[in-house]
Amino acid sequence: MSELSVNHLLGIKYLKAEDIDLIFKTADHFKEVINRPIKKVPSLRDITIANLFFENSTRTRLSFELAEKRLSADIVNFSAASSSVKKGETLIDTVNNILSMKVDMVVMRHPNPGAAVFLSQHVDAKIINAGDGAHEHPTQALLDSYSIREKLGDVKGKKVVIVGDILHSRVALSNIFALQLQGAEVKVCGPKTLIPKHIEELGVEVETNLIKALEWCDVANMLRVQNERMDMTYFPSTREYTQQYGVNKKILNQLGKEIVIMHPGPINRGVEITSDVADSKNAIILDQVENGVAIRMAVIYLLASKI
Amino acid sequence: MSELSVNHLLGIKYLKAEDIDLIFKTADHFKEVINRPIKKVPSLRDITIANLFFENSTRTRLSFELAEKRLSADIVNFSAASSSVKKGETLIDTVNNILSMKVDMVVMRHPNPGAAVFLSQHVDAKIINAGDGAHEHPTQALLDSYSIREKLGDVKGKKVVIVGDILHSRVALSNIFALQLQGAEVKVCGPKTLIPKHIEELGVEVETNLIKALEWCDVANMLRVQNERMDMTYFPSTREYTQQYGVNKKILNQLGKEIVIMHPGPINRGVEITSDVADSKNAIILDQVENGVAIRMAVIYLLASKI
Amino acid sequence: MSELSVNHLLGIKYLKAEDIDLIFKTADHFKEVINRPIKKVPSLRDITIANLFFENSTRTRLSFELAEKRLSADIVNFSAASSSVKKGETLIDTVNNILSMKVDMVVMRHPNPGAAVFLSQHVDAKIINAGDGAHEHPTQALLDSYSIREKLGDVKGKKVVIVGDILHSRVALSNIFALQLQGAEVKVCGPKTLIPKHIEELGVEVETNLIKALEWCDVANMLRVQNERMDMTYFPSTREYTQQYGVNKKILNQLGKEIVIMHPGPINRGVEITSDVADSKNAIILDQVENGVAIRMAVIYLLASKI
Repeated sequence: MSELSVNHLLGIKYLKAEDIDLIFKTADHFKEVINRPIKKVPSLRDITIANLFFENSTRTRLSFELAEKRLSADIVNFSAASSSVKKGETLIDTVNNILSMKVDMVVMRHPNPGAAVFLSQHVDAKIINAGDGAHEHPTQALLDSYSIREKLGDVKGKKVVIVGDILHSRVALSNIFALQLQGAEVKVCGPKTLIPKHIEELGVEVETNLIKALEWCDVANMLRVQNERMDMTYFPSTREYTQQYGVNKKILNQLGKEIVIMHPGPINRGVEITSDVADSKNAIILDQVENGVAIRMAVIYLLASKI
Repeated sequence: MSELSVNHLLGIKYLKAEDIDLIFKTADHFKEVINRPIKKVPSLRDITIANLFFENSTRTRLSFELAEKRLSADIVNFSAASSSVKKGETLIDTVNNILSMKVDMVVMRHPNPGAAVFLSQHVDAKIINAGDGAHEHPTQALLDSYSIREKLGDVKGKKVVIVGDILHSRVALSNIFALQLQGAEVKVCGPKTLIPKHIEELGVEVETNLIKALEWCDVANMLRVQNERMDMTYFPSTREYTQQYGVNKKILNQLGKEIVIMHPGPINRGVEITSDVADSKNAIILDQVENGVAIRMAVIYLLASKI
Repeated sequence: MSELSVNHLLGIKYLKAEDIDLIFKTADHFKEVINRPIKKVPSLRDITIANLFFENSTRTRLSFELAEKRLSADIVNFSAASSSVKKGETLIDTVNNILSMKVDMVVMRHPNPGAAVFLSQHVDAKIINAGDGAHEHPTQALLDSYSIREKLGDVKGKKVVIVGDILHSRVALSNIFALQLQGAEVKVCGPKTLIPKHIEELGVEVETNLIKALEWCDVANMLRVQNERMDMTYFPSTREYTQQYGVNKKILNQLGKEIVIMHPGPINRGVEITSDVADSKNAIILDQVENGVAIRMAVIYLLASKI
């Protein structure tokens, strides 16, 4: 397979296993590039990319921007705060306007689930979904799997538990799709109020006991607690969440085996994981960030070759 | 004529017809450039341009930024929100500070009419007015005329009606100047409360009846309704505006001839024009956006050659 | 001496006199570069710099950004307003995340004194302090001394008075360190409530009478009045401040000698200095801005050579 089966990266659920293989092999190459003294390649000098962020973002936006710069693409940035969106323009009109300026690819984060899919059906550009509401965040899932593959040699056959607020997490959903597609076993762990009702239908087992989940897994992906959501509707308090679902070094030491700790960031130190866990050898959190640039370069490069 | 008669682009009213010819011929070249696979030229590698936006803008800012990148200029962006302007610094001091950093050209949008002219008299850089209050928006008028020329072969002798809130529109005023300079006939159409009192002195006829205006014209430039201004002072409501001055497909079909529909964006679909009009063959709205980049490349290039 | 004695630029107090000499000689070269038609050098094409501004800034941010572009470095910008900082991430985590994306150097402005020093002890990148609370602003002090050297031939033996709110000023503190290191004599002048209690321990004399201070000095560095701080706690009012510590042309004319007037900007015209002073030959305010780019190029270049 030498090219992607898709024309956009809208979600992991639209990919085949071979697509992920191709993205990972391409990312292997780019990871070498970004560790050289000259971290750039001239590959995409003829491509213009618009980064449209209708939601705040630090690491995802920076990671895409660096990936684009390393590929020598031209970049225009657009954030909702200073945009015509406030003036009542439709999303399609906003994007068509940008595309009329000869933009070839759009990286979009949007608060509405399905915004990226909708856009891909109505405009003539390659679309990369950088997060659409609680739906998907495919590049995050790809960099997570890539980091597991790098640490453990393979994703296939590995046992991965995703811990936290599964209900509102696009990271969780994209990870479930990506891990299953590559032959990993996936469980989710968290308070029942934060786990979608019919998640078993996705082939995912629910484990509400953290210790049992950790004893079972090779990898624990600790989702970020979003304090703004931790109100009485879902769960009594952040403190009680930490007591039941926070991971500290003592818990890891009692497991009698090494597991890999992942986190999509930003970390609430002392909430979902303690500092001694975040800074331990088990954690591959900063590897995830580094791999994010390589993965995004790979995705952009592969989609650009289909223009 | 091989160079502009002016040292800045402050408004259409300071241009000669030959200036517009030169800008259009230069834009023809750049329109070819931006439709090539490699959309860039190295022409302005020795030029640094500051984009100073004291008012929010999406399409104008992006269009200038892309024009500058396609010309390989160095760019610094400055927006009022994060600026010293809040700290009580004068406009001249702000700009002189930026120029001391060896900036050659300033693209400025400012809420005060005359801000660009004032600046050009006090600082030592080429100034491009990207909109100054309700005064002028010269690059918009140039791209509008250029789009008419592209669609109808020529601007001379064409009948153009500008529909909407003429009173508060810098787009209207710059268009009137540009169209007349090129030998087009211009009418304005809209509710009396939104038309300046002595506009006839500019050689512009007022037509308050939309149907009559459309029957007369070759081109209708539909201005954006700014909802925030549509209060009782000027007009009863947006809905009543649409009933009297909105264009839909049925109205166009009854004209018995084809007219060109323009819009400076962002569109309020269903207010000034319906979706079937916006998306019809009559509309050249996205051509306007595309031409905007070529026109801005031409203006920047021609002014840079006078540095 | 061919390289700096430090690995970061955290404050003037960590530098040796030879470091300043080296920075100035390097800046001499870059000042020539930025006055050439092509204002760029390809020196740092292999370097990526992150500009992290946790406080608003116009001129400092633009000056660093232009310095980086003139050196051909890759740049990522990060401002607190759109960042994960709001989500409760620690500073070290934020910066480590950015560094994992293969960033080599961090330029940081932060409201907390000591933030730059703290960061340099915990992350693996060259750090340039672009202002940390009321602590230090080393590149400002370097460009100030560089501008004195340019105007008067040397800093050594010169008499410099810093006028204004010394208590809250990182510019004042960094200037005191830099001037003394180079053998200048320094006095401070301002209302007692705005002068730190034990400043004499730094070898700085306090002169509360403006005229006496000006009669003594070769150079007066007029700090900006920060209106938001000029409340009753410190001083009756801005108007009374101007009466006692504002400089106008009449005062300068009565001195019977020429002195150099400096100001870090942005100027409150009519408060700390009148317009006829700001725009006079005595003032080197715009030279300071121009030199700022050359100084920052020198600092970045010299630190990059130690990567």
